[in-house]
Amino acid sequence: MIPNKIYVDELIKRALLEDINYIDLATDLLIDEDSQTQAEYIAKADGVVCGIDIACRVFELLDDDIRTDVYIHDGERVRKGDVIGVVSGRTRTVLKGERTSLNILQHMSGIATAAAEFAAACKGTKATVADTRKTLPGLRVLEKYAVTVGGGRNHRFNLSDAAMIKDNHIDAYGGIIPAVKALRSKIGHMNMIEVEVRSRDELNQAIEAGADVIMLDNMSVEEMAECVKITDGRAKLEASGGITLETIRDIAQTGVDIISSGALTHSAKAFDISLKIKKNR
Amino acid sequence: MIPNKIYVDELIKRALLEDINYIDLATDLLIDEDSQTQAEYIAKADGVVCGIDIACRVFELLDDDIRTDVYIHDGERVRKGDVIGVVSGRTRTVLKGERTSLNILQHMSGIATAAAEFAAACKGTKATVADTRKTLPGLRVLEKYAVTVGGGRNHRFNLSDAAMIKDNHIDAYGGIIPAVKALRSKIGHMNMIEVEVRSRDELNQAIEAGADVIMLDNMSVEEMAECVKITDGRAKLEASGGITLETIRDIAQTGVDIISSGALTHSAKAFDISLKIKKNR
Amino acid sequence: MIPNKIYVDELIKRALLEDINYIDLATDLLIDEDSQTQAEYIAKADGVVCGIDIACRVFELLDDDIRTDVYIHDGERVRKGDVIGVVSGRTRTVLKGERTSLNILQHMSGIATAAAEFAAACKGTKATVADTRKTLPGLRVLEKYAVTVGGGRNHRFNLSDAAMIKDNHIDAYGGIIPAVKALRSKIGHMNMIEVEVRSRDELNQAIEAGADVIMLDNMSVEEMAECVKITDGRAKLEASGGITLETIRDIAQTGVDIISSGALTHSAKAFDISLKIKKNR
Amino acid sequence: MIPNKIYVDELIKRALLEDINYIDLATDLLIDEDSQTQAEYIAKADGVVCGIDIACRVFELLDDDIRTDVYIHDGERVRKGDVIGVVSGRTRTVLKGERTSLNILQHMSGIATAAAEFAAACKGTKATVADTRKTLPGLRVLEKYAVTVGGGRNHRFNLSDAAMIKDNHIDAYGGIIPAVKALRSKIGHMNMIEVEVRSRDELNQAIEAGADVIMLDNMSVEEMAECVKITDGRAKLEASGGITLETIRDIAQTGVDIISSGALTHSAKAFDISLKIKKNR
Amino acid sequence: MIPNKIYVDELIKRALLEDINYIDLATDLLIDEDSQTQAEYIAKADGVVCGIDIACRVFELLDDDIRTDVYIHDGERVRKGDVIGVVSGRTRTVLKGERTSLNILQHMSGIATAAAEFAAACKGTKATVADTRKTLPGLRVLEKYAVTVGGGRNHRFNLSDAAMIKDNHIDAYGGIIPAVKALRSKIGHMNMIEVEVRSRDELNQAIEAGADVIMLDNMSVEEMAECVKITDGRAKLEASGGITLETIRDIAQTGVDIISSGALTHSAKAFDISLKIKKNR
Amino acid sequence: MIPNKIYVDELIKRALLEDINYIDLATDLLIDEDSQTQAEYIAKADGVVCGIDIACRVFELLDDDIRTDVYIHDGERVRKGDVIGVVSGRTRTVLKGERTSLNILQHMSGIATAAAEFAAACKGTKATVADTRKTLPGLRVLEKYAVTVGGGRNHRFNLSDAAMIKDNHIDAYGGIIPAVKALRSKIGHMNMIEVEVRSRDELNQAIEAGADVIMLDNMSVEEMAECVKITDGRAKLEASGGITLETIRDIAQTGVDIISSGALTHSAKAFDISLKIKKNR
Repeated sequence: MIPNKIYVDELIKRALLEDINYIDLATDLLIDEDSQTQAEYIAKADGVVCGIDIACRVFELLDDDIRTDVYIHDGERVRKGDVIGVVSGRTRTVLKGERTSLNILQHMSGIATAAAEFAAACKGTKATVADTRKTLPGLRVLEKYAVTVGGGRNHRFNLSDAAMIKDNHIDAYGGIIPAVKALRSKIGHMNMIEVEVRSRDELNQAIEAGADVIMLDNMSVEEMAECVKITDGRAKLEASGGITLETIRDIAQTGVDIISSGALTHSAKAFDISLKIKKNR
Repeated sequence: MIPNKIYVDELIKRALLEDINYIDLATDLLIDEDSQTQAEYIAKADGVVCGIDIACRVFELLDDDIRTDVYIHDGERVRKGDVIGVVSGRTRTVLKGERTSLNILQHMSGIATAAAEFAAACKGTKATVADTRKTLPGLRVLEKYAVTVGGGRNHRFNLSDAAMIKDNHIDAYGGIIPAVKALRSKIGHMNMIEVEVRSRDELNQAIEAGADVIMLDNMSVEEMAECVKITDGRAKLEASGGITLETIRDIAQTGVDIISSGALTHSAKAFDISLKIKKNR
Repeated sequence: MIPNKIYVDELIKRALLEDINYIDLATDLLIDEDSQTQAEYIAKADGVVCGIDIACRVFELLDDDIRTDVYIHDGERVRKGDVIGVVSGRTRTVLKGERTSLNILQHMSGIATAAAEFAAACKGTKATVADTRKTLPGLRVLEKYAVTVGGGRNHRFNLSDAAMIKDNHIDAYGGIIPAVKALRSKIGHMNMIEVEVRSRDELNQAIEAGADVIMLDNMSVEEMAECVKITDGRAKLEASGGITLETIRDIAQTGVDIISSGALTHSAKAFDISLKIKKNR
Repeated sequence: MIPNKIYVDELIKRALLEDINYIDLATDLLIDEDSQTQAEYIAKADGVVCGIDIACRVFELLDDDIRTDVYIHDGERVRKGDVIGVVSGRTRTVLKGERTSLNILQHMSGIATAAAEFAAACKGTKATVADTRKTLPGLRVLEKYAVTVGGGRNHRFNLSDAAMIKDNHIDAYGGIIPAVKALRSKIGHMNMIEVEVRSRDELNQAIEAGADVIMLDNMSVEEMAECVKITDGRAKLEASGGITLETIRDIAQTGVDIISSGALTHSAKAFDISLKIKKNR
Repeated sequence: MIPNKIYVDELIKRALLEDINYIDLATDLLIDEDSQTQAEYIAKADGVVCGIDIACRVFELLDDDIRTDVYIHDGERVRKGDVIGVVSGRTRTVLKGERTSLNILQHMSGIATAAAEFAAACKGTKATVADTRKTLPGLRVLEKYAVTVGGGRNHRFNLSDAAMIKDNHIDAYGGIIPAVKALRSKIGHMNMIEVEVRSRDELNQAIEAGADVIMLDNMSVEEMAECVKITDGRAKLEASGGITLETIRDIAQTGVDIISSGALTHSAKAFDISLKIKKNR
Repeated sequence: MIPNKIYVDELIKRALLEDINYIDLATDLLIDEDSQTQAEYIAKADGVVCGIDIACRVFELLDDDIRTDVYIHDGERVRKGDVIGVVSGRTRTVLKGERTSLNILQHMSGIATAAAEFAAACKGTKATVADTRKTLPGLRVLEKYAVTVGGGRNHRFNLSDAAMIKDNHIDAYGGIIPAVKALRSKIGHMNMIEVEVRSRDELNQAIEAGADVIMLDNMSVEEMAECVKITDGRAKLEASGGITLETIRDIAQTGVDIISSGALTHSAKAFDISLKIKKNR
């Protein structure tokens, strides 16, 4: 499992406390403690699987005796009806963990599937798809990972990783060039600097300032194309703002390096997967 | 603020640790500690506001000197361009909390707006819209609250609140009637029992068993209408499974009591709100 | 183990941090790391066992190599001298976990034993014994579970599960009937509504308002009997207020449905159990 | 407030999450946000108040605008009907925090009241009353503090504070004298050593070994008196095992220094206090 | 305060729980609750102050009524005897927080002072001093911040920020060039890639591979000088391995860009500061 | 493992979250999931090993399949080049845990090595070396344990364990004798009382007051020698203040019982140990 296990385990425990709280009334009061079952994760649509190990981990954290087998791994495509994996063990455990497991798996697979569509739309161009910090509170690790599983890349993870200079930062120093210079004189050598620009003039300043990456904020395709020409490889260019599956290919063809989309994570649609529980033994 | 303050504060702190981590490179290194600013939450579309107090709380947890004013409260409608509220104080604080605050506000307002659309579609019928346990891990409190703000109602919060009897529980007791009876003999007097049914036969058993609520799982509108007739008020009926804005009104008109939708929370679309930060003083 | 494992593990860890803190001076400095021992849980009185799996779990969380065997399970009766279970493994682990394990087991068994006495006193009547929210901070899961193990039932778990309308809520709406109506129009379909009443008049209003459950607050046995007659099955009736083992049977015979007691949990007497540690090997 | 504020705040927050969870259905849905109220803590019996500052703190953690006034402080005696303190502010806050606040206050006052009875029974003797590690999981800070408020003293707080040498430790070293000697050669100079003895012979060994404190485990009053004579001030003597209000005075008069009781904390009876909420404004 | 307040508060609370635990025996039992005092932080040597706001925050978290004033801010030089700041309020609070406050302040000022010495030794060269991930568990935020306050810069904060390619990563891909290429094809556009090299040959490969930064691992001054010449600005060069105050200037004069030192944080010497507590009022 | 496992596991998890955060970019993106490796802890200097079990535990918490073997245990001496232990398992796990594991091991071994030097310098005298509360926030358990592993002893662990009476406490009661008397009348029988003195006069008062331990604060060797004579065994004497390896033997020879040093923990130098990772399989 790639995302930090310590982090994932804490997140799962929090989700299980939220979903179960005290006991599972129906399950604990009706199902025999010794009853065993098997359950299969089944795709209900076509897409990209993501989070299957984490989904299985939900059951392991509830019960040391659970067994899980994964058939289709993170990043692999599924078709409707495919069996992604199987969980075997106490019926009580399977029923208690079901909802939490699926909530995670469906969210992550939904993001991976959307990211894969965006990435496919950029195929043949030099543009890569990236996420943003527009993630749901507490879920960034899962969501950023899902974007990469779908074929996208990660933008900075948090405000400490890399710097993005925006309006207010620029105003504080009276211009892009002094702002970047000031920042470069203090920032670590492993931290990239990105500057957000809204015009050709700002672009030129950002290039001159030595920005590592320049974000073209809400520009038209034509403007972006021109920015690419002006920049001529002197900085990486990131297109941002209201990207959709309809518009992404045109943007990719302008020659920008990165296309970032908040919708990938802030408006992710769940990918439909069910956990088909077999009859109890 | 209605959702439990203790819970909300923990959630916000977790989100801020995730988004800021160590420092805010650009802000801490470029913006003067004494710089003050004002920022306005501005709606970028029409919808229902939800989470504005929580969004403001983000800044208060970062800085005791911040001041927030709310103009449009949870549950009120906004039109594109409306100013929902304002945050005043240190520029550093405003910039550091911005993303976390918006991520919360956009998610909650997105859910409230969708719930309001569902609720509007049921107008004039006896049906109420309800959520499910298909929520994102760690966010159930915010999401369930947003559904009510939009005009929906909450289904059970967790597995300890109320019991839902499904296939596996029924099998364990050899039928709906013995299963409900067994559960009723153990469960608390404040816990409702809901039974999931897939046929008229099961419906009749559930009614006879004295279920408080009966879920009609993935039935056609015609089947549901017939179930309403059969039930004749002896239990509440809940329609569930793949509800959309297109199908909900027809379902509501069958006479069911509750229509529950997982998509309200598991596939919520962010409602677009920006935090317009004024120039620094 | 029925209570949520995630919850139980956190509670045990907190207790062990509290009881051990840094090291166990006597044990860590005197007992050899390789020393092995066996210890038996022995009942020092007659009663109902509760929490034995949780008591054993204490040792498992301290040491992966510990082995526990349970002979008398939750809900079973013990007589003075009975061996409830046995713990085998490192002497150090057994000595370090002993106090925490017993503190939990004695508290839970004390509650289960008391609940069993209350339940026995109601035998032959339709009344069931229930707990309240008068539990010790942080221990509600254990205490509520212990009540059920003794043969009682659980009242609502928390303020989000079900609604109890009291004086202040009623005043805010000018009467029981408008208050219940207002609440019913907002509350979820899985949430019960209980109304607290102090007179026949209030009882009639509560019935008319459609309360699911009505609490007869501190009434005499005669008043309760009359309330049962008036209600005639139109709502469940809960007797509450200063219930003791002396008074409970008379109350049960009035025909009320539920008798709730705070003392079961807020004044629980520990059930005496020792952990007899054998000589070290 | 004497007990560590950081610790107390965490404990209260945990209790509020447990008791409220998501929302307070009746209160949040029925009581107006602006409604204000006052509520008085009223003693329903005679005893010793303990925990009033912590009980008030419950409301402060829920709401910055709450105001609390304490009339009868920790350690002071109350008579039935006395007003201990008052809470003023939002009705919603008062209703949400009520149960948690009372659960804490009643538990702590119950322990303080019992400790005061034990202490009174020892009056005129040199014996002091002490608690043990037989406390409820997660509540030791509150319980140990309550014992001191009632006039008792604290035994060691945890296994790292001081060492208690028991059977198993002694066996590991082949006798009390070598065990104490071994421990003294490793333990810090601020850690006391107590030895548990069951006979005059063991007492003599413990004295010779230089134990700081010697526990007389489950001895008769006569045996204890003799032990006091033998010891003649060479070590402090602690009487332990099944102490009750009936037996404590006789034990105190034997001349032992400390009488420790697990029942003070493991079987504490709640002291009855109500929070009388005035009509809403 | 620059380091994330949420993070700092959690760290302080953990430290206070560790240092106080239950109560402060001497202070809570001897000092009157109303006693007020003032205390001054006084430098006992010459150096650079760091962490004074965090040191003051310790008291604020214990007591809302405390007042703190800072005279010498983070990054400013102090001479022996200087008063850095003052804390006023309850004597109990001042005594309870003293040790934790000083432990933090002395550690951070010690690091800042050492970093300032390293930075001074590089003066006039292009080299900047950087920290490493060799920090004490749980203290990285404080330690990394202290390095910057002393005039150093931060290397990557954690394994997610930026990539460092070492032996094992290179072996997995059969060479530096394919490893960097593979990584570049997957990593985000905001993540720098650094390669560790031990020879001129490896240096040439790393440059060809397009590494952003190249670490010269444990090279002699002569080797480093030659690496600078070879690289000729095509990548940033970081000197690493056993840097001391004696060797750093020679290394800086080779023309490397960054000199990183683990000792700055893993072997930090406390800077001596006392909290002089005035007589109680 | 002697230090409380629950505590250690939480500390390690916090450290791993800090060091890894989201993913390990280089390792997760370059190293194959199935790749296995072995790594050896190798001493780079002569000293005393401490924390090897905790260092190994880092890997176990990341990966259930890791295997660790320890050759040189806590408290044993190593010479440069010695292999202390070995870690075998997934290459990814070994690389991810490496830094955290070493940071802990080097810090603890550094303290143990320094404590051993101090202890050796006292050899042949009656003095024992002790630590203080001058530890790094959150690391006290590890640091205090390391002092004992090196041959030192622990002073009190926190403010609840034992009481240290200083200036302010004495002033509050108008003298050492009334202060000690007041404290003794309230404090538990397992809590030692230590008094800090600065003169012969204060020493005499402290002895008369019955202090268990008396701290000679910043006295000259001659003064200490005289204090030893005056005290003549009526209390334990602790020398404190600016102890170094140069001065400790002279102090020890004065006949004091304990010599405490803050530098052991607040200025600990890391002991150099590397984790030599073998080539991947």
